[in-house]
Amino acid sequence: MELNILNRINSPKDLKALNQEDLPLLADEIRQVIIEKVSQTGGHFGPNLGMVEATIAMHYVFNSPVDKIVYDVSHQCYPHKILTGRKHGFIDPEQFASITGYSSPKESEHDFFTVGHTSTSISLACGLAKARDVKGEKENIIAVIGDGSLSGGEAYEGLNNAAASGKNMIILVNDNDMSIAVNHGGLYKNLAELRQSNGTCENNFFKSLGFDYRFVPNGHDIDALINVFSEVKDTEKPVVIHMYTVKGKGYKPSESNKEGFHYVGPFNLETGKQLYSFNGENYGQIIDNFLCEKAKTDEKVIAITAGTPGVVGLNKFRYEFPEQFMDVGIAEEHAVALASGLASQGAKPVLGLYSSFIQRTYDQLSQDLAINNNPALILVFGSGISSADVTHLGVFDIALVSNIPNIVYLAPTTKEEYLAMVEWGLEQNEHPVVVRVPGGPVISTKEEVAPNFSQLNCYQKMNDGSKVAILALGSFYTLGQNVQEKLKSITGIEATLINPRFASGIDEALLTQLLANHQIIVTLEDGVLDGGFGEKISRFYADKEMKVLNYGATKEFTDREDINLLYERYRLREDLIVEDIKRLL
Amino acid sequence: MELNILNRINSPKDLKALNQEDLPLLADEIRQVIIEKVSQTGGHFGPNLGMVEATIAMHYVFNSPVDKIVYDVSHQCYPHKILTGRKHGFIDPEQFASITGYSSPKESEHDFFTVGHTSTSISLACGLAKARDVKGEKENIIAVIGDGSLSGGEAYEGLNNAAASGKNMIILVNDNDMSIAVNHGGLYKNLAELRQSNGTCENNFFKSLGFDYRFVPNGHDIDALINVFSEVKDTEKPVVIHMYTVKGKGYKPSESNKEGFHYVGPFNLETGKQLYSFNGENYGQIIDNFLCEKAKTDEKVIAITAGTPGVVGLNKFRYEFPEQFMDVGIAEEHAVALASGLASQGAKPVLGLYSSFIQRTYDQLSQDLAINNNPALILVFGSGISSADVTHLGVFDIALVSNIPNIVYLAPTTKEEYLAMVEWGLEQNEHPVVVRVPGGPVISTKEEVAPNFSQLNCYQKMNDGSKVAILALGSFYTLGQNVQEKLKSITGIEATLINPRFASGIDEALLTQLLANHQIIVTLEDGVLDGGFGEKISRFYADKEMKVLNYGATKEFTDREDINLLYERYRLREDLIVEDIKRLL
Repeated sequence: MELNILNRINSPKDLKALNQEDLPLLADEIRQVIIEKVSQTGGHFGPNLGMVEATIAMHYVFNSPVDKIVYDVSHQCYPHKILTGRKHGFIDPEQFASITGYSSPKESEHDFFTVGHTSTSISLACGLAKARDVKGEKENIIAVIGDGSLSGGEAYEGLNNAAASGKNMIILVNDNDMSIAVNHGGLYKNLAELRQSNGTCENNFFKSLGFDYRFVPNGHDIDALINVFSEVKDTEKPVVIHMYTVKGKGYKPSESNKEGFHYVGPFNLETGKQLYSFNGENYGQIIDNFLCEKAKTDEKVIAITAGTPGVVGLNKFRYEFPEQFMDVGIAEEHAVALASGLASQGAKPVLGLYSSFIQRTYDQLSQDLAINNNPALILVFGSGISSADVTHLGVFDIALVSNIPNIVYLAPTTKEEYLAMVEWGLEQNEHPVVVRVPGGPVISTKEEVAPNFSQLNCYQKMNDGSKVAILALGSFYTLGQNVQEKLKSITGIEATLINPRFASGIDEALLTQLLANHQIIVTLEDGVLDGGFGEKISRFYADKEMKVLNYGATKEFTDREDINLLYERYRLREDLIVEDIKRLL
Repeated sequence: MELNILNRINSPKDLKALNQEDLPLLADEIRQVIIEKVSQTGGHFGPNLGMVEATIAMHYVFNSPVDKIVYDVSHQCYPHKILTGRKHGFIDPEQFASITGYSSPKESEHDFFTVGHTSTSISLACGLAKARDVKGEKENIIAVIGDGSLSGGEAYEGLNNAAASGKNMIILVNDNDMSIAVNHGGLYKNLAELRQSNGTCENNFFKSLGFDYRFVPNGHDIDALINVFSEVKDTEKPVVIHMYTVKGKGYKPSESNKEGFHYVGPFNLETGKQLYSFNGENYGQIIDNFLCEKAKTDEKVIAITAGTPGVVGLNKFRYEFPEQFMDVGIAEEHAVALASGLASQGAKPVLGLYSSFIQRTYDQLSQDLAINNNPALILVFGSGISSADVTHLGVFDIALVSNIPNIVYLAPTTKEEYLAMVEWGLEQNEHPVVVRVPGGPVISTKEEVAPNFSQLNCYQKMNDGSKVAILALGSFYTLGQNVQEKLKSITGIEATLINPRFASGIDEALLTQLLANHQIIVTLEDGVLDGGFGEKISRFYADKEMKVLNYGATKEFTDREDINLLYERYRLREDLIVEDIKRLL
């Protein structure tokens, strides 16, 4: 496709110089650019295709960056990036990696926040609006939010306050009738009623909160969008523009498989088929199969997801056991409290959460769940050091979860141990249990593990070595084995290898025992050291005759960094660790 | 007052045996019991007086504990406790302390959760409802929630899901037109419209989410309440009952000073005047005065509270600088994101949060604030080891806040240092800054402290001692001084005393320097050890020739325990610490 119009656009100013009738052509070009880039690199797909026309219309009417647009999650800002001086990152394959998948003030003055979690745009925009007001300025503040994000509590807190501000604030609700998966909740019925009544139905959620309200039935109609944006520009009251769009618009496979094309890996442009498919076993399928088996004979097993059934191992379960499946939408806080309520009555809730998203639930884990000591089971996916975007890191969950009293945080090292922990977590009645689902390829020993972890903080000693003991937590158990082996080959020392299993407490008896014939303890954890597992071990030995080396991630936000460089920086390699041990011997 | 009716009530069954016309007399008796007890012991007052009639009506109509009532915050459950076998804790002064101020499953089968944070009842009730459904049972699930709690995101997530459940769920909204302070937000306009229109106004927030809706204009009319509860009993759809009550009903001083009587200390029954007033300086007033001074010359200083202006030092500020004051209601998540947005544009937000309630904001601290590295200032009140209720502990904030990258967590030891930290936090542009406001009596040295903390993690060494170094963080600095003194008097050792100032990082240079002539490091922190400050010090020294003793709270939930017993259990006394040091010398 020739980019006849896009070639002339390097900033919103260039866009404003176009004739309005050329804008649909520009939309086609932008859409094509996104489809082609994402087919090669992977990325967020459906959300971006749905926002092409609205983004063009916003930049045509408003004066960015004086007028400020805040994107929720910001996984729909590719069109915005393309129009604000960053099209090279979408057109030129050599520069694909130069532009991130989320809004980034480091990239452009048209971006105001680095965001990647949902439901934040309205609250952040309220901050921009109040700063404007105290400075006596007059610009427009626009918060863009998808319907899926509206179920999150932070979005509602923002709406409630934005409505009461009585000042300029324009909220663009991109209603595509989808969260990441299908939407759930009372609000979505209201959005459907509003769509069906062309915005006129009796009870209007947004109006009830006090917003002015405009409905745009076709969010791909640039003229209509320009009209409504022009009408609300410089408004002195908070207004919600509710537009209806098609998620994945303009590409057949994504229009028909909205969930599958929310985020995709590289795919074949002709067929929409993923280029790289993973045929092996993964921890998601494993839990899906396991829970389906459980549910067949136990109607009290309830699987819960907060809007991401596909990524927390409920792809089969959700269809086979719809009565025992709850997708609460993007509402992690509710999900944890719900699980606590279920567990209090003898049901067996299992809630899957992403490591990065469990951050939303600290208070619910502590208050709703842990203080009440209800035996709910939570599975944490996506944890560990990675090359993820800064907004999606999985390194903070150990410090977050394991320092809350009463919660048992388990870190399995193999498939068999994982399933044993899940089985125990589901069936026991004593504790809230969280299991850190391993990442990466499935490690199986084929040896059965007894589903009994009732003796809390009982570590597993794998051999009787001496001088050096290696406490290798969860997904770093393999690294522990490698350190053990390397140390032996270089120094002849037969180190003791320990699978701690429990990230939330220490095995005082075993640690005391080690004092007899060990001088050095090595701790390995796949997360940030500060507040983590290793520090507990260091504290235990701090007044005793033992040297301790803690390995894990530094307390820092990394952003798409090469994982091997991270491992090197953190000295998370057997050769580097053995070097350190040797220095202490 | 004679308790002619209450004397016959030991359970809801006794209540049901009464004639309906006797219930208002019972209400009078319960109200009198609450007024008299709280006048002697202190406690939540207004919320309980508002719920007397509704509680009687609920227990008259529903069949607790088969039908299950979940109280939000549960600071309004005194009438419920009085009616469910616990009246002795309200009538008999010798038993006053036997009953907690919040719902507690340990006390009664009529209580389902220990709760003390707002906005949780609907989500918890959703768990009870789903457990009921999978077990094939039929009881009513009732969630009681005050209007102030409705601004919290978790409440909305619960509403959104409860509405969509399509099953029995009765939500009683106690609308008294008050949060702890005055309500803020679009929702409250809707509640007002609903009150003014007798529940019939065009846009109904609850109906928009899909609820059936009933309005009760007088929530103190027991007959009306019995009628509406009887109508919705065994409903098969989610329903909201919106009742209007008077907070503090039935006691003149509390009806006219609703915020002051939300929670009170002991007071004179005749006059309503507090018996014990504190005339000294406190850290709340100090910050109030300081911020008022700042605001006089700087319109960019914006003070934010999440529904608790009185307890985070904004009593004067809110009236003197209304344009620079934002009460977002109970919406801590929004408050943090708002502050980040403000700071991103050069405004100077200062947000006061309670230690226990900052737990709601982990994700916003991390994502909205820290990743964006915006220079907002947050003050944490109410931290430290205490005899508080289990739901209001202030011991977890160090582990929560200080392990998030980019955030500078400061712990002042005196009034002057506190103000210097606040001044620096407000005026610098580099970091999100959190200051742990000291508790207890104000400590002043009258020596000015320079408002410069730009050299991060630079601890302050107070003297050049040897052998032992004491790192005494924030409010435990005095304890550190006492340890130093005691150690000298007993052993002659002149220990080095250090004011770390930074809870969020370590001063590697100083810690390394100490290796030269120190053998023992003592860390003192007024919070839980796990994930806290001392563990970072232990980790630093773990592979070096240094013994470290970490003092702080054990990872556990304490509940109204005597603080001196806690100090003893945690060995947080100079004599016990010196004993430990001597053992290591």
